[in-house]
Amino acid sequence: MNYVQIYTGKGKGKTTAALGLALRAYGAGLRVLFAQFLKKGDYSEISVLEKLKDRVDIRQYGTGAFFENRPTDEDVEAVRDGLREVNDALSSGNYDLVVLDEANVAIFYKIIDIDEFLEMIKNRHAGVEVVITGRYADEKLIALADLVTEMKEIKHYYRNGVEARKGIEK
Amino acid sequence: MNYVQIYTGKGKGKTTAALGLALRAYGAGLRVLFAQFLKKGDYSEISVLEKLKDRVDIRQYGTGAFFENRPTDEDVEAVRDGLREVNDALSSGNYDLVVLDEANVAIFYKIIDIDEFLEMIKNRHAGVEVVITGRYADEKLIALADLVTEMKEIKHYYRNGVEARKGIEK
Repeated sequence: MNYVQIYTGKGKGKTTAALGLALRAYGAGLRVLFAQFLKKGDYSEISVLEKLKDRVDIRQYGTGAFFENRPTDEDVEAVRDGLREVNDALSSGNYDLVVLDEANVAIFYKIIDIDEFLEMIKNRHAGVEVVITGRYADEKLIALADLVTEMKEIKHYYRNGVEARKGIEK
Repeated sequence: MNYVQIYTGKGKGKTTAALGLALRAYGAGLRVLFAQFLKKGDYSEISVLEKLKDRVDIRQYGTGAFFENRPTDEDVEAVRDGLREVNDALSSGNYDLVVLDEANVAIFYKIIDIDEFLEMIKNRHAGVEVVITGRYADEKLIALADLVTEMKEIKHYYRNGVEARKGIEK
């Protein structure tokens, strides 16, 4: 057992599934690190996780501008600094569940080296559950994981002309 | 736009994605009903949702014994009573987001009539976002939804001999 879960694919629900897992773990008294790569900002989910800060730590490593563009030097630096912090967190024994949101994307764009990443996962403190999200999960990471779920888009009417509703889409 | 989302398929993450959506909506100040069909009991997610009870209501309609057996008369009754309550909630205007966890399963086993269910969804208060989870989503419901995601099991090493860890698997 490697205690590694992956949520990948183009469909919705990857980050929200990880959030749900964080919520469930918190409810059971576990300690959670919720780390987001390539994201920055005041997502609604972040504001509620902040209410659980007695046992949930949140980190964001990125400029938040990546999804519209190529990764900037600033993104790359934020992700790599973040990875060192995550490495420390994973080996510290301070967390029961560590979520690495969008790490798959950072690996896909080679901002994170897959072999270094795998080493970090393998060398972590015993018993830490790791949840990794994002499109394009690497085959080597899939090989390591116990549980891999692909979120598949069956139907998606883009809400053209309808403003994204705070709390629903963002 | 029908503001209906479905999470279906055999993979993990359907209920947890719905939980994440509830968390995000709560964070944005929205009012949430989290209704679970065919479930009963003290899931870790329920205990944390209870901390958000200023804007999150939780309901469970079932005996919790269904997944090992056929639905009992008690399950059927609980689901049907629940459906009336959900119908009232959907038309009340008291909620911005209504989660109907495992409703797909209740429909699949004909405990809920699909046509009645569709009527209920169509006649709800304007602007209520509805999230429906569970395997075996009905084609008629898929036709109504804007967003349908299939959670596909790519890999699942069952944790044989490893006790389910509170806060992770349950």
